[in-house]
Amino acid sequence: MKDIELNDMYKDVFPFWDGLSEEDRAYICSTTQYLRYDKSKNIHNGNKCTGAFVVKSGCLRVYIMSDDGREVTLYRLYSGDMCMLSASCVIQAITFDVFVDAEENTECLLINASVYNSICEKYTDMKIYTLELAVSRFSDVMWSVQELLFKSLDKRLASFLWDETRRSGSDTLKMTHEQIAKYMNSAREVVSRMLKYFASEKIVELSRGGLKIIDSEKLRELAF
Amino acid sequence: MKDIELNDMYKDVFPFWDGLSEEDRAYICSTTQYLRYDKSKNIHNGNKCTGAFVVKSGCLRVYIMSDDGREVTLYRLYSGDMCMLSASCVIQAITFDVFVDAEENTECLLINASVYNSICEKYTDMKIYTLELAVSRFSDVMWSVQELLFKSLDKRLASFLWDETRRSGSDTLKMTHEQIAKYMNSAREVVSRMLKYFASEKIVELSRGGLKIIDSEKLRELAF
Repeated sequence: MKDIELNDMYKDVFPFWDGLSEEDRAYICSTTQYLRYDKSKNIHNGNKCTGAFVVKSGCLRVYIMSDDGREVTLYRLYSGDMCMLSASCVIQAITFDVFVDAEENTECLLINASVYNSICEKYTDMKIYTLELAVSRFSDVMWSVQELLFKSLDKRLASFLWDETRRSGSDTLKMTHEQIAKYMNSAREVVSRMLKYFASEKIVELSRGGLKIIDSEKLRELAF
Repeated sequence: MKDIELNDMYKDVFPFWDGLSEEDRAYICSTTQYLRYDKSKNIHNGNKCTGAFVVKSGCLRVYIMSDDGREVTLYRLYSGDMCMLSASCVIQAITFDVFVDAEENTECLLINASVYNSICEKYTDMKIYTLELAVSRFSDVMWSVQELLFKSLDKRLASFLWDETRRSGSDTLKMTHEQIAKYMNSAREVVSRMLKYFASEKIVELSRGGLKIIDSEKLRELAF
């Protein structure tokens, strides 16, 4: 990407951008890496300080992982979002590790951690923006955690199906059980069993590679 | 408390204190409420913006709660700690609700949320301190969550017993199963069952209102 395009993109993403000196803006742009990742590629791994990713297109999934490989999704980032947790060295108060995967084919801009850090130290607005971003991710994470700890699976599955079909405006969902399980931080077997139960209750109709909502009223009742 | 004592306490707690004007320091001190809470008393409840609690003595427990009353402890605050989550209106990026109980007889100072907010807006250092505190709580919460989601109960109970006895320097723990369950975010029945299993494995010896570690090597192996 040309520096002038980068400058325009950062201007949209960062409310503090115009407050930086021309020199500092140019420094960030000239040291930015443009990266393309294929779907499912891991792009940040635990305790390294990779830097701050800005999503240009596609989707990044941020998650934590247990020793035996269980994953729990914390949140997803889309075009224009910045991932701070992969630059935990910038915010010293962050002392836990996350993983980041490209969930679709994704284009990213990577701002080097030490570049980000050195400029952040100079501008209070940038520092406050960065901390506020981390705190708002904290809120996202708390939502996921409460969902996961407190809602039983039937409710969680019902509200997932409700949200997805409301969002797409269609009563048909083209997702495999595997994909639904991944979105819900659950296992495929568990989701399949619950979907079969939903089908037996005439809430959904299952088909190859997808499902159709046939009783949205019942689904809504279950979800809320 | 006299304002002069308050001033000394805040000086110890807040690194930004000396940077405030004399007028603003006096404003915070004169509007501070001194409060005493009995053990087990709920002192903050969900989505209200109670203000910023500073613990003078005792212990506050910060937790989330499900609709059906299940609690998950996020962290505990001791003397000199400040609770920001009870003043979520100060940090707008915080959009989730917590509960706070006094876990022991506790003395607190309560800084009114709008006083805190108005002074925070004037001083960048105070704002950054407040945000950094919230982010470091984010880290505490992530530790609790990972523990809860990823560790199986035998490991969690073993590491709890290990930590507690190491801390006290004694092989005897004077806590009821109910209390242990509360600390571990679990149910009494589940903890009692696991303790009986530990007793059958000759790891602990159970007694009325407590237990004794009889094989600390085995306990350590289980915990790590």
